[in-house]
Amino acid sequence: MTDTTYRTSPSFDAATRPSRVDDTTFALELDDQWNGLTGAPLGGLTLASGLRALGEAMPFPDPLVVSAYFLRPARPGEVVADAELVRSGRSLATGQATLAQHDREIMRLLATFGDLGAASGLSSMQSAPPELPAPDACLDPLGGLAFPGVTITDRVEYRFTEPPGWLTGTPSGAPVQTFWMRLRDGTVADLAALTLLVDAAAPAVLELGAAGSSTLELTVHLRGRPTTDWLACRCSTRHLVDGYHEEDFELWDGEGTLVAQSRQLAIALG
Amino acid sequence: MTDTTYRTSPSFDAATRPSRVDDTTFALELDDQWNGLTGAPLGGLTLASGLRALGEAMPFPDPLVVSAYFLRPARPGEVVADAELVRSGRSLATGQATLAQHDREIMRLLATFGDLGAASGLSSMQSAPPELPAPDACLDPLGGLAFPGVTITDRVEYRFTEPPGWLTGTPSGAPVQTFWMRLRDGTVADLAALTLLVDAAAPAVLELGAAGSSTLELTVHLRGRPTTDWLACRCSTRHLVDGYHEEDFELWDGEGTLVAQSRQLAIALG
Repeated sequence: MTDTTYRTSPSFDAATRPSRVDDTTFALELDDQWNGLTGAPLGGLTLASGLRALGEAMPFPDPLVVSAYFLRPARPGEVVADAELVRSGRSLATGQATLAQHDREIMRLLATFGDLGAASGLSSMQSAPPELPAPDACLDPLGGLAFPGVTITDRVEYRFTEPPGWLTGTPSGAPVQTFWMRLRDGTVADLAALTLLVDAAAPAVLELGAAGSSTLELTVHLRGRPTTDWLACRCSTRHLVDGYHEEDFELWDGEGTLVAQSRQLAIALG
Repeated sequence: MTDTTYRTSPSFDAATRPSRVDDTTFALELDDQWNGLTGAPLGGLTLASGLRALGEAMPFPDPLVVSAYFLRPARPGEVVADAELVRSGRSLATGQATLAQHDREIMRLLATFGDLGAASGLSSMQSAPPELPAPDACLDPLGGLAFPGVTITDRVEYRFTEPPGWLTGTPSGAPVQTFWMRLRDGTVADLAALTLLVDAAAPAVLELGAAGSSTLELTVHLRGRPTTDWLACRCSTRHLVDGYHEEDFELWDGEGTLVAQSRQLAIALG
């Protein structure tokens, strides 16, 4: 692992920082520095931004689970977030955020917040992080490549043991990928940033020859705070039927802690 | 497979049927015949009921994905569902339902609807149904047992290759279970009933010694319409950390079609 300081990522913070308009309304400004393969801001950027806005309205610090329904593509520019505290209990609270651009709703999300640090109870792990050589011993096949309109590679850094098949024009037929990922500024991702990162890799169905994938819904479980900048990723699709597929994503920190687990339902593009 | 007719389950229909109050409001009447291990109506019953109410407000027939946030335990009795069409597009529509008892919200859900029959695109399966002997060749370890307050076993039938460890007081330590399940009246589950069934089995963490599990959030992907009454189930938990765990659930019909895939975030009870 490289040396890290626990400062907030300046670029992530700027791209997702909510600005309070009134008790329940926040203004967000999506920038064009986190554009995915479609050339538009990653769904995960909108999600992370909305989650931060919702967090301002919640009595507990940590998002534990968030479900985002993707309604329309986001464009760089202002997003108005309306945050509602739905139910607050002794140790958990649930809220909802609606996100709109030009008065058209682009995403709706539900999330439950709590305090990860206060969690106690049984523990038992039935799986392990991906086995990968250290990041510095891996390849950086996306570094230096320019994809028109794609800026996420300026903000997020990837390390693979071999170039992914989709990148070299030879999809492997196996929709499972393991690799390292981190914010390129070397900061340690906070929980909101994890919800962006689970959406920041090429979809596993590219290895089945799909040209892309369009998300309907994405749910992220936040399971721990990372302690390292580099995160080991496992991304997979098991069931692609008539275009519909799930995509599962795990993020593990460099000390072997599962920090986020996500699943989305998406439609593969032919 | 047993002979089946494609009639609606009378008991499921009665327990989840929405009655329209006005354009966006529906009355539901939860009965006490689908109570889980806690002696209260299954979260999946509330979910299935709310999904049916929401379906009345949607322009497409099939729920494709639904996320339910569990706010308070449900009790048998009236539930008022408010259904909102959030966004309607050419082939997909997203809606939200809020469910309340005595003016206290018990569940909020988001769902996207479409038409499964109109789906087309790439297909590739990377996993297979659980390998199980025919249901008639399996054990019925729950049949005839009476658990105080638990009525789900009167409505749902289970078949195992061996009695689950939690049932015999010897948890296996392996939080993975495969088994058959069907509605006890022998009808073929519709998509709404699948959202109940993914919540109708004992949680996998019982095999780790947990006394139960409390759901925070449950997301179900509806992937196909079953053609058989008996459904092969795979239920697993891989990551139990400080009480928090995911539970993954797959339902496959007797012809080997994946019909539903779900994941929940829950807290294991010590």
